[in-house]
Amino acid sequence: MIEQLYRDLDAAYPEMVEIRRHLHMNPEPSFQETKTARYIRQYYEQLGAAVEHGVGGNGVVARIQGAKPGKTVALRADFDALPIQDQKENVPYKSTVDGVMHACGHDGHTATLLVLGKILHNMRNELEGTYVLIHQHAEELVPGGAKSMIEAGVLEGVDVIFGTHLWSTTPYGRIDLRVGPIMAAADSFELKVQGRGGHGASPHETIDAVVIGSQIVSNLQPLVSRRVDPLESAVLSVGSFVAQNPFNIIADQAVLSGTVRSFKEDVRSLMETEMERVIEGTSMANNSRYEFNFKRGYPPVVNHEKETHYVKGIAQTVPGVAEVYNCPPQMGGEDFAYYLEEIPGTFFFTGAMPDGDVYPHHHPKFDFKEEAMLLAAKTLGAAALNFHK
Amino acid sequence: MIEQLYRDLDAAYPEMVEIRRHLHMNPEPSFQETKTARYIRQYYEQLGAAVEHGVGGNGVVARIQGAKPGKTVALRADFDALPIQDQKENVPYKSTVDGVMHACGHDGHTATLLVLGKILHNMRNELEGTYVLIHQHAEELVPGGAKSMIEAGVLEGVDVIFGTHLWSTTPYGRIDLRVGPIMAAADSFELKVQGRGGHGASPHETIDAVVIGSQIVSNLQPLVSRRVDPLESAVLSVGSFVAQNPFNIIADQAVLSGTVRSFKEDVRSLMETEMERVIEGTSMANNSRYEFNFKRGYPPVVNHEKETHYVKGIAQTVPGVAEVYNCPPQMGGEDFAYYLEEIPGTFFFTGAMPDGDVYPHHHPKFDFKEEAMLLAAKTLGAAALNFHK
Amino acid sequence: MIEQLYRDLDAAYPEMVEIRRHLHMNPEPSFQETKTARYIRQYYEQLGAAVEHGVGGNGVVARIQGAKPGKTVALRADFDALPIQDQKENVPYKSTVDGVMHACGHDGHTATLLVLGKILHNMRNELEGTYVLIHQHAEELVPGGAKSMIEAGVLEGVDVIFGTHLWSTTPYGRIDLRVGPIMAAADSFELKVQGRGGHGASPHETIDAVVIGSQIVSNLQPLVSRRVDPLESAVLSVGSFVAQNPFNIIADQAVLSGTVRSFKEDVRSLMETEMERVIEGTSMANNSRYEFNFKRGYPPVVNHEKETHYVKGIAQTVPGVAEVYNCPPQMGGEDFAYYLEEIPGTFFFTGAMPDGDVYPHHHPKFDFKEEAMLLAAKTLGAAALNFHK
Amino acid sequence: MIEQLYRDLDAAYPEMVEIRRHLHMNPEPSFQETKTARYIRQYYEQLGAAVEHGVGGNGVVARIQGAKPGKTVALRADFDALPIQDQKENVPYKSTVDGVMHACGHDGHTATLLVLGKILHNMRNELEGTYVLIHQHAEELVPGGAKSMIEAGVLEGVDVIFGTHLWSTTPYGRIDLRVGPIMAAADSFELKVQGRGGHGASPHETIDAVVIGSQIVSNLQPLVSRRVDPLESAVLSVGSFVAQNPFNIIADQAVLSGTVRSFKEDVRSLMETEMERVIEGTSMANNSRYEFNFKRGYPPVVNHEKETHYVKGIAQTVPGVAEVYNCPPQMGGEDFAYYLEEIPGTFFFTGAMPDGDVYPHHHPKFDFKEEAMLLAAKTLGAAALNFHK
Repeated sequence: MIEQLYRDLDAAYPEMVEIRRHLHMNPEPSFQETKTARYIRQYYEQLGAAVEHGVGGNGVVARIQGAKPGKTVALRADFDALPIQDQKENVPYKSTVDGVMHACGHDGHTATLLVLGKILHNMRNELEGTYVLIHQHAEELVPGGAKSMIEAGVLEGVDVIFGTHLWSTTPYGRIDLRVGPIMAAADSFELKVQGRGGHGASPHETIDAVVIGSQIVSNLQPLVSRRVDPLESAVLSVGSFVAQNPFNIIADQAVLSGTVRSFKEDVRSLMETEMERVIEGTSMANNSRYEFNFKRGYPPVVNHEKETHYVKGIAQTVPGVAEVYNCPPQMGGEDFAYYLEEIPGTFFFTGAMPDGDVYPHHHPKFDFKEEAMLLAAKTLGAAALNFHK
Repeated sequence: MIEQLYRDLDAAYPEMVEIRRHLHMNPEPSFQETKTARYIRQYYEQLGAAVEHGVGGNGVVARIQGAKPGKTVALRADFDALPIQDQKENVPYKSTVDGVMHACGHDGHTATLLVLGKILHNMRNELEGTYVLIHQHAEELVPGGAKSMIEAGVLEGVDVIFGTHLWSTTPYGRIDLRVGPIMAAADSFELKVQGRGGHGASPHETIDAVVIGSQIVSNLQPLVSRRVDPLESAVLSVGSFVAQNPFNIIADQAVLSGTVRSFKEDVRSLMETEMERVIEGTSMANNSRYEFNFKRGYPPVVNHEKETHYVKGIAQTVPGVAEVYNCPPQMGGEDFAYYLEEIPGTFFFTGAMPDGDVYPHHHPKFDFKEEAMLLAAKTLGAAALNFHK
Repeated sequence: MIEQLYRDLDAAYPEMVEIRRHLHMNPEPSFQETKTARYIRQYYEQLGAAVEHGVGGNGVVARIQGAKPGKTVALRADFDALPIQDQKENVPYKSTVDGVMHACGHDGHTATLLVLGKILHNMRNELEGTYVLIHQHAEELVPGGAKSMIEAGVLEGVDVIFGTHLWSTTPYGRIDLRVGPIMAAADSFELKVQGRGGHGASPHETIDAVVIGSQIVSNLQPLVSRRVDPLESAVLSVGSFVAQNPFNIIADQAVLSGTVRSFKEDVRSLMETEMERVIEGTSMANNSRYEFNFKRGYPPVVNHEKETHYVKGIAQTVPGVAEVYNCPPQMGGEDFAYYLEEIPGTFFFTGAMPDGDVYPHHHPKFDFKEEAMLLAAKTLGAAALNFHK
Repeated sequence: MIEQLYRDLDAAYPEMVEIRRHLHMNPEPSFQETKTARYIRQYYEQLGAAVEHGVGGNGVVARIQGAKPGKTVALRADFDALPIQDQKENVPYKSTVDGVMHACGHDGHTATLLVLGKILHNMRNELEGTYVLIHQHAEELVPGGAKSMIEAGVLEGVDVIFGTHLWSTTPYGRIDLRVGPIMAAADSFELKVQGRGGHGASPHETIDAVVIGSQIVSNLQPLVSRRVDPLESAVLSVGSFVAQNPFNIIADQAVLSGTVRSFKEDVRSLMETEMERVIEGTSMANNSRYEFNFKRGYPPVVNHEKETHYVKGIAQTVPGVAEVYNCPPQMGGEDFAYYLEEIPGTFFFTGAMPDGDVYPHHHPKFDFKEEAMLLAAKTLGAAALNFHK
């Protein structure tokens, strides 16, 4: 049956490319993906498959009921695009929407799952179990679509969930995965240091926000170097420090912002708590005030051990998969995290490095090797079909 | 003779006000004061006094030759305005030039010296010595007009120079002066910290300009606290720190700027040298690069001891002067400094606080009490006439 | 045959305890272990086993040649003690040597390997392959004994090496191991900051070593927080900062020392290079001098993947082993590292937590549960015998 | 009468030297000067002059009542020595007391005042006014003797007080003085930073006292560079930073100490308040505790304007005084400060640089030119006698 799945997917590959390119030319930003959602829904409706829409927002969920008893397996693909101007050259499928672009491969994820869904639908009389095909909106923008889709009940009765991300900087033919954290908690923060401005020649009449901001930047360094367990990972980057004044004016205010990355909830909470402690104490030391806003992004994506080993074993058998690589975690974030907080499952990267120039995700010239969609579909499909054994 | 001077000045006060208001309504920015220069020159020409123009730029110099032998005394008034929009309300003499304003009282200085010059011219047959009336352009903008007027020979044969600044925050009736430094060397600097930008989650692939800039700000503090003699004064203010990036990007570059104030040339040089040392060392420690530009403003105004005591004694006898105050030095700069580097003399502040709201110099609502011009004229005049005793 | 090994070891356990206690009462510090070495050598000589002594120092190596062809397997036990005063109470085997103590369990390692060696010698006619029993001196003191024993040829022809450490803070019955780094590179450093002292009231005549030392401590924090890949581990601890002076004297000198821990050679080199860069740059910024001495300890102990999985599988079958735990790495160092730089193998911890009070290694009251020696011997022995399959 | 004073002093110079050398050979440390006090008291008793002893401790006060009405003038000399081992070579008057030495010239002050007192006593029938000769104990050690002598009533009815310090680094023949602050407030502090110690490899389980102490040292720098008016003087020197541990242990505690100098009470209070603010805030930022003890020394010695100008005028007429110099303030402290907080007066330095090697005060080889005592006596005496004019 797996062999048939592979054959059907091979045969449907041109359709997959066609769908992907259609979506690529018609991108919609997070939380505004109404046309894309309708496209997905109509695809399933035309098949005659059961499909719900407006799930937790723009989410669309199809259900394929196999004829035989079995587990319930969810597969997830996201479908939102980014507020980036497409700068690709010489491709016929460039974005037609000004300032919006599928610069992260979600078009490919959607095409992969739609075609896989169609084939599963066609095979339904021979299938064991149930297949929940989660087409999720708004992955790129906190609070994301995963959380609201879960709240809308999308995981009810589901035994396991699998998902993948096409990855432009991983070689084609390779599947990357790991047990435990595979993507980071990506939080951000804003800090306003409020001093008291004045003339550059009279520092004693001021509270110098540049000096205080600088002390805070330095005093934050020991959070990672001293307070986090050296066997754990954490990053605190102050990306922005702005106190713009004429040269002879002492700064009233400095505005700092940045990002914090971690892989465990306790490390993440430690960073949040200790950041505020450092900021509060340094402000006290300088008789200044502050406003600190720590904005939590998605939690870390933590792959379950058993399910990850399972997918690893499956992936090694998929034709075209040359290598299954035990990858280090990525510092980026993904709201797939929320699914894995609820039920077992795993998230993996499908190598999709193009043959020519390679651009990272979110780059205006980002693109991926379309054949990788086929490997993603085969791995997800095989993982789903085999899960009942 | 002094008594006659006082009487003549009292009588000419309305003219002084008239001239001041004319100039106030027709301000010209530094190095562009052609109409003002012509106005001054024509004033002396109408008197029949010897006058040179185009001295070291827009400078104008009149000479009154007394009938009797004596010293040569120079008096100086500056006449440039500032690129500030006049925001005064309810005065008939508001600036008529958009974006230009006499916001520092140079109009008053000029009116004071013109009228004093006219009276000295009228008294010339009874006077001892020679009076050099220096109308200087471009005090507000480095490199200033004093330097080029000196290079043009304005101090040749001059024995002593006196000057004053009408001061809006000093009470009317008070003369402020001091032996030694009375106004600061006001230098400025710009620093570009050049790191290597990157993604906020990958600090190890970057050279973080925010962290380095912050270290530099902190490492600069010991210049004043440790390297300058505690009995000397120095200020180093980093007024601006700009590294503006998206929250998840590590800064490629940070641009800092600020001001350095000091009262002695050796302290000033120490600050310049040591700033670069700190910046160079901290950059080396971080494997980053930098561009540092220390821009020297005017030297400190250093009053000569004997001449200051002399003017102090004179001022105590001027009718209307209620107090002669041994003031602390001001942190601002003045190119009168250059004259005092060449010949003996002193520079003092004439209290000119208005009766109503008080605004500091360079404020869009700056104004001064016009009667103070009379006290300035009497003090300068008496100091000049008495100098031959 | 494995079953027979287990039975023989069980029977020989009293001898194992006897040997351990004898060694415990007669400890010798690193590089001075002549009596212990002779004891080991004589044990093998009495068996009639081939034994070399004086191998790379005090090292002793026995070889058991099985009757059948097979691989060559090395097992290693270290036998030096520590310069610590034994403070154990109520045990009959307390150290009899003043100021020297087996406070790390090497007595147990030696007893384990000697008895295992005897049993292997007795089984030699049925055994496949060759067994190299490495009794290593001087593990506790850099440069250690492993390096010189390797240079003396102890690994020639050896296919694989296994070693274990009895661990007093790991529960009895548990075997801890992991693929990759299991123990850290433990380096140390000394830094002398040389300023110029002087009177506390005259900072400008000094170069303040306390201010500079403090800047260095702060400037070193970003090495871990910014320069090391956040997915890697590194620790830099300045444990000591000494500038002792009367309160009114500015410090001439500050002496700092500390430790650096890492798990990868590139991270270790980065730390060494970047530390010196920070120190050099900060010294330059302050016009001070420095002496910096980075003292490399042992490299990290990096377990080979295949061999570790192999031992993991074996350990799960050893009677008495209740759990095989995939442990996090330890921040301590071990010169077993050198063997694993040369040939495949793995190093694991054998849980040896005593029933009563638990003291960490190197504590004056350190002790371990003697039964753990039996589990260590069975695991090492089974790993050795099975390796030919 | 002044001329007679000068002649009598010249004649008594050998006695002055004799007294000084006797005291130099018999030094007593602060608060233990019982023999010296008895020596002084007996000197006056032998003259038949009124003398009190045990004034506020070991203090001795003589009173010379002139025959004519006039002001009451106090002159003060201190008489304690220092806990320093005399290392002078080739002088017959070396200290005979082990570890105690007149290394600050108080022996000279006492000889000067005793001989001056004797001459005033002899001239009493011609004198106007009253002369209070204050021989003060314990100047070298906080809380000093001045405060308790004032509390004992030594200044009651006194109109003015004069005092001088022989100064080994000022040329002989010069008198140094200034209006306003002439000697600093010399305060000291101790700070204990209490973290939580631990193993160097586990920073996350500790609160690192070295990192915190270093932050505090850096964060204290802006007190002088930013919070004190740049026209005022302040010094904050952390002279000692001690956290001594084995290299692989993270510091539990760091002990810092140092000195703070200032010339004005408001600056002094600002430094004390702001130091604690910085320490408290930095401790809060690091979750550590601290003990901070700011120990106030003497207040600044602030010379009164009128009395200083008066002494300046007198000094210029004293035979042998070559120069009266308007000196910068000294950063050292003096409890003469307390007298000037109560009544008008002035304190000056009498140049006493020896002909050969020059050593600073408190040096084991300190000495001064004895002829300077004569200039001190003449200046003090003339200032006292003339004060009634």
